[in-house]
Amino acid sequence: MKIIRFLDPRGKPRWGTDFKDGTAVPLAGSLYGSFRKEGYRLPVRRLLAPVVPKAIFGIGLNYRAHAGETGRPLPERPLVFMKNPAAVLDPGSPIVIPGICAGRPQVDYEGELAVVIGRDARDVSLQEALDHVLGYTAANDVSARWWQREGSGGQFVRGKSFDTFCPLGPVLVTADEIPDPRSLRLKTTLNGQVVQDAGTEDMIFSVAELVAELSRGMTLLAGTVILTGTPAGVGAARKPPRFLRAGDLVHVEIEKIGALENPVRQERPE
Amino acid sequence: MKIIRFLDPRGKPRWGTDFKDGTAVPLAGSLYGSFRKEGYRLPVRRLLAPVVPKAIFGIGLNYRAHAGETGRPLPERPLVFMKNPAAVLDPGSPIVIPGICAGRPQVDYEGELAVVIGRDARDVSLQEALDHVLGYTAANDVSARWWQREGSGGQFVRGKSFDTFCPLGPVLVTADEIPDPRSLRLKTTLNGQVVQDAGTEDMIFSVAELVAELSRGMTLLAGTVILTGTPAGVGAARKPPRFLRAGDLVHVEIEKIGALENPVRQERPE
Repeated sequence: MKIIRFLDPRGKPRWGTDFKDGTAVPLAGSLYGSFRKEGYRLPVRRLLAPVVPKAIFGIGLNYRAHAGETGRPLPERPLVFMKNPAAVLDPGSPIVIPGICAGRPQVDYEGELAVVIGRDARDVSLQEALDHVLGYTAANDVSARWWQREGSGGQFVRGKSFDTFCPLGPVLVTADEIPDPRSLRLKTTLNGQVVQDAGTEDMIFSVAELVAELSRGMTLLAGTVILTGTPAGVGAARKPPRFLRAGDLVHVEIEKIGALENPVRQERPE
Repeated sequence: MKIIRFLDPRGKPRWGTDFKDGTAVPLAGSLYGSFRKEGYRLPVRRLLAPVVPKAIFGIGLNYRAHAGETGRPLPERPLVFMKNPAAVLDPGSPIVIPGICAGRPQVDYEGELAVVIGRDARDVSLQEALDHVLGYTAANDVSARWWQREGSGGQFVRGKSFDTFCPLGPVLVTADEIPDPRSLRLKTTLNGQVVQDAGTEDMIFSVAELVAELSRGMTLLAGTVILTGTPAGVGAARKPPRFLRAGDLVHVEIEKIGALENPVRQERPE
C-alpha cells in the first residue's frame, strides 16, 4: 500500500491511500496498530511528510563509494547520529538555508532511503528485523557541513538538525511492496542534473542489518525513522564543491517510492 | 510549582503536584499550554519521569573542570548530541547495563541539570530564552564510553542512547521557582560516596545561552529536554576508572529539585 499524509479540506492532517486526481481514501486507525480504508474519498489540499517521527536516526558512510569520496575508511559498525524531529519537511516545501549557515557555503543534499519502524524493536535478530518495518519512503538528509564537522565539536547532530533539513516523502510504501530493500535504484538530481545514482545493494549495512544492530540494547520505538545513508555524489565531495543555494531544486527519486522534490530558499543572514 | 508524573491507582499516567504522604493533586490540561489543579487528591502508585520528551539534546564538556578532566580544550560553542527518547527512565527504576556493553567495563554516570522547554523556541534572544523554559529536573546522562568514543565512529549518540540511559526526576520544578539556574548545587553520589559536587555557575554556557544558541536555525519544540552537561568526577576520569556495576546505587541531587536515585543492574551478556 502507498500511504500519504495530507491536509483535508478543513485543514486536518490525515493518513490516506489511493492518491490520484487530487483525492485520496482516508485511513482510520493507527499506522502502528491496525488501520483500514474508509469507504469514501477526500480532496487532498496539501501533501505532508508521510510520517511524524518519534525519533530520527541517521547512518553515516553507509555506501562504499560515498565512504570513499569522504576519504574515510569503511566503518566496521554503523556510524549512528540523530536529527531533531522538528527538522521534518513536507514534499514540495522549501529547504531553507538558515541565517546561521549563511556565512559559509555548506548546505548539502543527501538522497537516502528512509525506513519507518512499525513495531517497537529491541534485540531483534537479523531474521526478524524486517518484520518490525512498516515501510519505506525517500529522504533528503540535508547537512550543513561546517556545523556537522567543526561547529559542534565533531558531533553531527547540530549540522543535521536545522529546520527543514529532513524532507520526507512523497509516500510511505508498506514493506509488503518492497520485500527486498537491497535492490532499489536511488537517484538524486539537482536542477535536473543527476548528482547521485546508485543501488541500495551498495549499502555496507543492509536495512535488516541496521534494524537488528541498532536494536541491540536500544528500543527503536514504532514511528522511529532510520535514514540509511547516502551514496556517492554529495556536493561537498565535488570538485569544486557544489553546495545548495536559493533557487535550486532537489529531487530524491527511489524506485517503487517516487520522487521527493524540494526547492531551496535562503533565509536572511543573521 | 513542583510537578510529578505518576501512575494513579488504575495504572493511568497523570501529571500532579503537592506530592506528599503518597498522594498528589492531579493537574488537568497540558503542561505545554495551560493547566490547573484538580480539587482532589489521588494515591500515587508509582513515580514516573516527570516529562515525556519530544527530543533529548545533550551538551558535552559544559563544565570547566570536566572539560579539564577529559583532556580536551574548552569548547568555543556548545557540543551538541542527542539521546533516543526511548532511553528515559523513571526515578527509582534500575539503570540496566545492556548485554552489548558487558564485554568492556564502560557504563558511566553523569549527573546533570535538565531543562524542559515549555514553548517552541526558534531564534530566541538571550533575554527571551528563559521565557521558553517550563522548568527544571535532575538527569543522569548515562554513557557507555566505548560506544560513545569508538563504537560508532566517534558519534556520541549510540553510547548515550541505550535503554534506561536517561533517568529523569524526581520532580519538574517550574521556572518561577528557579529564576536563576546559574547558582544551583549539583551533587552525584555513588553508593553514598560523593563523586561529583559542583555549582551550575561553573557551566561554560549557561541555560539561557544554551537555549538561545540551540534555537538558532532550529526549533526546540515544547517538550524538548536539554541535558546541560556534567561536572568533573565522572567514573571514566577517575584513577583507576570506576564504571557502574550491578548493585550500585546512583543519586543525582540538585538544590531546589531533589534527589534522583537509581540502582544499577546488569543484563545477561549477549
